[in-house]
Amino acid sequence: MRLVAFLLSGPTAHHHGMWRHPETDNAFLTPEYYEHIARVLEAGFFDALFFADILALMDFYKGSYETVLSHGGQMGLLDPMPMAAQMARVTSHIGLGVSVSTSFQHAFQIARTFATMDHLSGGRMAWNIVTTSSSPQWANFGLPATPRDQRYDIADEVVEACTKLWDSWDADALVIDKASGRFADPEKVHRVDYAGTYVRTRGPLTVPRTPQGWPVLMQAGSSPRGREFAARWAEIIFTLQHAIPDMQAFRSDIHARMGQRGRRPEECQVLVSVDPVVGETRAIAEEKAAYLSELVNPELGLALISAHIGMDLSRYPLHQPLEDVAIAEGSRGSFDVILQGTRTHGLTLGDAAKRFAVSELCPQVIGTPSDIADQLQAMFDSGGCDGFVLTPTTFPGCYEQFSRAVVPELQRRGLVRTRYEGRTLRDTLRA
Amino acid sequence: MRLVAFLLSGPTAHHHGMWRHPETDNAFLTPEYYEHIARVLEAGFFDALFFADILALMDFYKGSYETVLSHGGQMGLLDPMPMAAQMARVTSHIGLGVSVSTSFQHAFQIARTFATMDHLSGGRMAWNIVTTSSSPQWANFGLPATPRDQRYDIADEVVEACTKLWDSWDADALVIDKASGRFADPEKVHRVDYAGTYVRTRGPLTVPRTPQGWPVLMQAGSSPRGREFAARWAEIIFTLQHAIPDMQAFRSDIHARMGQRGRRPEECQVLVSVDPVVGETRAIAEEKAAYLSELVNPELGLALISAHIGMDLSRYPLHQPLEDVAIAEGSRGSFDVILQGTRTHGLTLGDAAKRFAVSELCPQVIGTPSDIADQLQAMFDSGGCDGFVLTPTTFPGCYEQFSRAVVPELQRRGLVRTRYEGRTLRDTLRA
Repeated sequence: MRLVAFLLSGPTAHHHGMWRHPETDNAFLTPEYYEHIARVLEAGFFDALFFADILALMDFYKGSYETVLSHGGQMGLLDPMPMAAQMARVTSHIGLGVSVSTSFQHAFQIARTFATMDHLSGGRMAWNIVTTSSSPQWANFGLPATPRDQRYDIADEVVEACTKLWDSWDADALVIDKASGRFADPEKVHRVDYAGTYVRTRGPLTVPRTPQGWPVLMQAGSSPRGREFAARWAEIIFTLQHAIPDMQAFRSDIHARMGQRGRRPEECQVLVSVDPVVGETRAIAEEKAAYLSELVNPELGLALISAHIGMDLSRYPLHQPLEDVAIAEGSRGSFDVILQGTRTHGLTLGDAAKRFAVSELCPQVIGTPSDIADQLQAMFDSGGCDGFVLTPTTFPGCYEQFSRAVVPELQRRGLVRTRYEGRTLRDTLRA
Repeated sequence: MRLVAFLLSGPTAHHHGMWRHPETDNAFLTPEYYEHIARVLEAGFFDALFFADILALMDFYKGSYETVLSHGGQMGLLDPMPMAAQMARVTSHIGLGVSVSTSFQHAFQIARTFATMDHLSGGRMAWNIVTTSSSPQWANFGLPATPRDQRYDIADEVVEACTKLWDSWDADALVIDKASGRFADPEKVHRVDYAGTYVRTRGPLTVPRTPQGWPVLMQAGSSPRGREFAARWAEIIFTLQHAIPDMQAFRSDIHARMGQRGRRPEECQVLVSVDPVVGETRAIAEEKAAYLSELVNPELGLALISAHIGMDLSRYPLHQPLEDVAIAEGSRGSFDVILQGTRTHGLTLGDAAKRFAVSELCPQVIGTPSDIADQLQAMFDSGGCDGFVLTPTTFPGCYEQFSRAVVPELQRRGLVRTRYEGRTLRDTLRA
């Protein structure tokens, strides 16, 4: 069972009550905050952690970022790459994933940064590949949003160019012989001369071949085009799915698409997102979850769904069934996930918004360590997933509790490793 | 007297004998290499260190990167930003500069990364602003090189947009009041709506205001347009100048240009590049320098000048006076510096190439600690500079020797601090 931790540099990950919890540490502008959580997650034998990212203050709701800023909604305050570099130095096994959009940086830059990070982390980097749908993020880069299919066409070229750049140095190209004065073997360093429709680069990369060669590739697309992209490239896919049948359907679909490309299911870990709330007793855990949910400003939920679907939901009455809201092109996949929960519960817009902001529309796992292990095992044994992306409900307490209490229970069941084997993140994922 | 250390992730900084020296550590793909040098430089009370960068393997010479790779020429193997993030965690006072080109990353990305780094370093970041002249670097980004004046026009807009993004959060915008649920004050976070000829961004930045607000801005342009840019923005300028009269003329010119813009001379530190070789006696130091120079492959010098001036010097006979070589548009400033030394010594192309590769065309400071202090003090007292950018001749020995032996001598003379005052790099530069 794979365990990956979701991080976002700001007040919340998924659960918008997080930053207001009495025990939550909001020192998200300091390196100590990130270094601590990296150590906690490695002590909990997580395969990897990764940073989601948001390149703008979202302002679909009422045309303003006021709601998100005032009440502490989802924001990616900092560029996560420097934090990952620092986290690499206080850990030695856990994988380090960073989201970088294929839409705003050139392939050469992306390839160079990840190759650098793979050296500096001893082969533990993952690239969470995102294409960026929402127009406020594009506006910060001075551009109108590109339609989804074209974004993925560009992303295919960006990743293709990156892989060629990563492969441009043979593993034994560096010689460094002081006596003869031979520094490297130019026959083992190759031009790339990549010329796509959208991306051009000459190469070679400046970076000698890294421990992993390529970083582990992660992806989270849920539209058909996004799934095609994932089936081609991803070694880790994470997804928001509401219930086990949805998970099973998603994973089967990914496996089928991979099969069409000659890839085997074990080449990609399909992970589903869950939010844990751990308690000494089931009653305590449920009270904790209820307490946390009370901390959320209801408007944040509307602002959050507005951001996910790219339209202003302040125009709709709260009693409107969410299924009847007309959706703009762009984030269909995210919206379908929201609809899964809505259909199951017959929710109105207002209900769904509140539940989304408190993370109830992806599986919450609430209970004693043993309860939580049961729930995770049930999803895992169902064939719905290869493991989980955990998102925190308090910080860093949620991950501390999970690592100290739930992981040992999962280890007793033989579901989670008791020591790291191998050297690189890719070794860890294959062990 | 300001002291700044020049770093480049690869076999050489300026002196191409560096990597072949018996004591040189070539572990430039590891974090320990960078962390060690950061500690050494902070122990030596340097104001800052900074990374130069080169976004390609240079191939002007004979149309191939073979010479540079084979013999270990100037290369920026890694993206320096992640190393700077790691160096921030093993130091607490020294400034950390990183070169980022204004030609290949969007202003929003640049502003976000430096703001992140300024938080994570406690206010110690500097941005060495480069525009990137040479076509191999542009080719890696799939583009033909932009002419110099236009590059600087773009750079002016990129920096302008960055400063507006850095100013988009008031210092007291974050509230983080768990009780009331007030996370931030949206009235204190401002749209930017920057629309230049080349750069557009909406803003605000995602990053709350940083300890320094803006990183310290560094620049090294030497053409008239480059100097205009520096006079507008730079707080640190570094330059290659051959002799004291050249330094004096350069610094006066910068001060005059700053005056026209209403800036005072003390708002910018003009630093000149020197390469130290420290010995127990003058004779030992001179023998060390000669030994180091013997390690350089002569062809590297031609490849290096070819890269600096953007043309293939393999076509010219070695006995040709360098002044008679016709120079392509683009790197006039660098070439003029090379010519300074050529004129002084009446050098042919072959002589100049060799001397450039062993760093003799910028001032070498060779001798006992006291000799070196004398030479630095003479340049400093002449009004030719506000301090020095040191480039290493061995690594990390050159900086260790300088920190242990020369800095104490400079401290005895009252020229270098004996403790860091203030909190940020800008404090350090003003103390």
